[in-house]
Amino acid sequence: MAKRTLVVIGGDAAGMSAASQVRRNDPEREIIVYERGEHTSYAACGMPYLVAGLVDRPEQLVARRPEVFRERQNIQALTHHEAFEIEPQGQRVRVRRLEDGCEFWQSYDDLLIATGALPIIPELEGARAEGVYALKDLASGIALTRYVQEAQPRRAVIIGGGYIGIEMAEALRLRGIETALVHRGPQVMATLDVEMGALASRALTELGVTLYLGEALVGFETQAGRVRAVVTAQRTLPADLVILGMGIRPNSDLARAAGIPLGVQGAIRVSPQMQTGAHHVWAAGDCAESMHLVSGEPVYVALGTVANKTGRIAGLNLTGAPTAFPGVLGTAITKVGETEIARTGLQTRECERLGIAYTTAQIASSTRAGYYPGAREIAVRLLAERATGRLLGGQIVGGPGSGKRIDTIAAALTARLTAQDLVDMDLSYAPPFSPVWDPVQTAARVLLRSG
Amino acid sequence: MAKRTLVVIGGDAAGMSAASQVRRNDPEREIIVYERGEHTSYAACGMPYLVAGLVDRPEQLVARRPEVFRERQNIQALTHHEAFEIEPQGQRVRVRRLEDGCEFWQSYDDLLIATGALPIIPELEGARAEGVYALKDLASGIALTRYVQEAQPRRAVIIGGGYIGIEMAEALRLRGIETALVHRGPQVMATLDVEMGALASRALTELGVTLYLGEALVGFETQAGRVRAVVTAQRTLPADLVILGMGIRPNSDLARAAGIPLGVQGAIRVSPQMQTGAHHVWAAGDCAESMHLVSGEPVYVALGTVANKTGRIAGLNLTGAPTAFPGVLGTAITKVGETEIARTGLQTRECERLGIAYTTAQIASSTRAGYYPGAREIAVRLLAERATGRLLGGQIVGGPGSGKRIDTIAAALTARLTAQDLVDMDLSYAPPFSPVWDPVQTAARVLLRSG
Repeated sequence: MAKRTLVVIGGDAAGMSAASQVRRNDPEREIIVYERGEHTSYAACGMPYLVAGLVDRPEQLVARRPEVFRERQNIQALTHHEAFEIEPQGQRVRVRRLEDGCEFWQSYDDLLIATGALPIIPELEGARAEGVYALKDLASGIALTRYVQEAQPRRAVIIGGGYIGIEMAEALRLRGIETALVHRGPQVMATLDVEMGALASRALTELGVTLYLGEALVGFETQAGRVRAVVTAQRTLPADLVILGMGIRPNSDLARAAGIPLGVQGAIRVSPQMQTGAHHVWAAGDCAESMHLVSGEPVYVALGTVANKTGRIAGLNLTGAPTAFPGVLGTAITKVGETEIARTGLQTRECERLGIAYTTAQIASSTRAGYYPGAREIAVRLLAERATGRLLGGQIVGGPGSGKRIDTIAAALTARLTAQDLVDMDLSYAPPFSPVWDPVQTAARVLLRSG
Repeated sequence: MAKRTLVVIGGDAAGMSAASQVRRNDPEREIIVYERGEHTSYAACGMPYLVAGLVDRPEQLVARRPEVFRERQNIQALTHHEAFEIEPQGQRVRVRRLEDGCEFWQSYDDLLIATGALPIIPELEGARAEGVYALKDLASGIALTRYVQEAQPRRAVIIGGGYIGIEMAEALRLRGIETALVHRGPQVMATLDVEMGALASRALTELGVTLYLGEALVGFETQAGRVRAVVTAQRTLPADLVILGMGIRPNSDLARAAGIPLGVQGAIRVSPQMQTGAHHVWAAGDCAESMHLVSGEPVYVALGTVANKTGRIAGLNLTGAPTAFPGVLGTAITKVGETEIARTGLQTRECERLGIAYTTAQIASSTRAGYYPGAREIAVRLLAERATGRLLGGQIVGGPGSGKRIDTIAAALTARLTAQDLVDMDLSYAPPFSPVWDPVQTAARVLLRSG
């Protein structure tokens, strides 16, 4: 009997997690991974810190190189190979070897699509001019780092105040570059309620970033193919470096062309076992849809944590270990200088869209006992269902030690706990770590009173 | 109709939380608090940091002074008043005013006993000699701080490697005092499994504390009423300062004398509403028993968090807002230098005593992404029920950012989640905060494989 063949398209978090899990459970399976780029298993989330100079060498961001996959796990990880067509009926994939343009068909017993996400590039003249960067993969992060080091830009403009935007703003300030950030919404971080977003905006301002809020990008000015300025409806901002942080979209073009059903925002629709609508075709990571654990609705959440988890789940199911992925909360964390920013679950806007009657409370407390050295301000915002008190979401902005508290809320959301449950919860306390009521509980107490 | 009178014995966390909660719900109630000492509502957990010199003034540890309770909340908080007899049938308490020795009977409609805990003092000659300290209340913390500042002791011996012992060891090292710690068990921190306790021992050693493990206290040497040395079975340790950290016991003597039923370790037995076995008598805080949320057994857990919670619960029930306290996990956190130490739920020893078949996993990971500056080692240990995978407990020892992760485990225990639930959980990740799999999840993954 011939060995079963698993073909994986995409060699980053989801693809390589799946491949590793399959190899762990099945020493015999043939596993071939086609990766268009040069790197496998790299930490995309680490790129801002490479640009910042906090990480010295790009190789530090690579968890495992292709040759290591080959040698230690017998996984054929082939870089510079682009899968550009899927034929689900024939169970084969068409691949182009980029170094010589050679094309061939690869048969599979199972196919995992792990093609990730792509940055959104506006359809504007100059959006691809020299000096304009978007973080697509590690190679693009390396190119940007090199530009920052070698071209020594003096004035940068960042378009978009999401995670990438604010992390890049911090990175460029650490490089001493004059940095402006243009954001369409009233405050940065649209995944926070606007009251909490305001605290994130303040942290950026304190870092010396000039914010232009409520301003939309209109165009770019270029000269000899190089960017010279960013144009908004209100002003023209001179720039010799522009970073696009306008969001991402699932890289699902290949799946769409093959007739594989797509869902929210064009992400590949998958079952809890990570099966797509096509036989023997699976998907995981930033190209796939997820289920939201609070709303029960399909959502598109592109995060490294989810990619690792769904890759692992796909791998388990591919080797006869039936495992369902329960879903996501959209838990995320970042920082701007010393200010930590985190969120999980539903925010106000989503509750309103879903027609959920909710209550909300926002408190200011202290990261440590007030008398303990280094105590810093922390703001916590909680949302709960009005009728039941069930927690719906949480947001945190504060000094060192604030952000990871979001995990307590994430655990509470996972278990469908109420604000009362959170108040009663036996959380840890000592003066160097917390006031006697953890700020998360203080928010829950206020929520109970307002509910 | 006469106003109802609530009498509270003890003016610290539990007593004043209850009084404040009663006042919030009932503006009319007469509330009288008798506190034997000088201070109300002080942070007992802050005393090591006062001794260390990290907190300058004792007043910083006082959350609210008696006159503030009187003026702002109309709570008669009377310090230097010792309640020394309870007559449950007559609904009255006998009180001694310490400044003049005057005694009187105080009637109550409801009585709350919040007498806290007392340090265990060994029945050995010299245990109360000059230079020997135990932390009983804020006054004793102030006295110790003064001794450290004024007598300038050079060699200290701490008896007992629990929370107080290791926090005082850190404090004395910060004062530049040569410090030895004598502990009966094989490693410090008996609330951790011995493999994790070893990491706490190492942290103390790195701080320059000389550890004598597996050694029992035998006696003291004194000269002219002052301590000169600590004697163990193995050696004599010269000392001009001795700190007793040999544990605490519930201060339930008053309740016992009044015939109020006691439970585990002599703590006052209470219902989930904080009612004792005597009519109109309630108890909360360090003098009362708790229910363990994992084992379902009564336990004695004396912690500020629990005192605040149970005081609040008593206050709610005293004002007709029926509320049950679900129970405790024994969650606790502390630090030794840069090493954070935390635990929650059941440990190995307790599982064995309770006859629970368990599995355990202990992992070493990183507090941040390995490539991010400041990443430090973190060890996580998890216990789960063998048959079901239900989490039973967790322990963490590691660098900055490690300890508060215990709250994620505490939340999981509260909701009776399994190791699988923890692996699937959508926890936060960004390189400055965590590897992509949080160390807590890495431990859960290893637990699944070993289960």
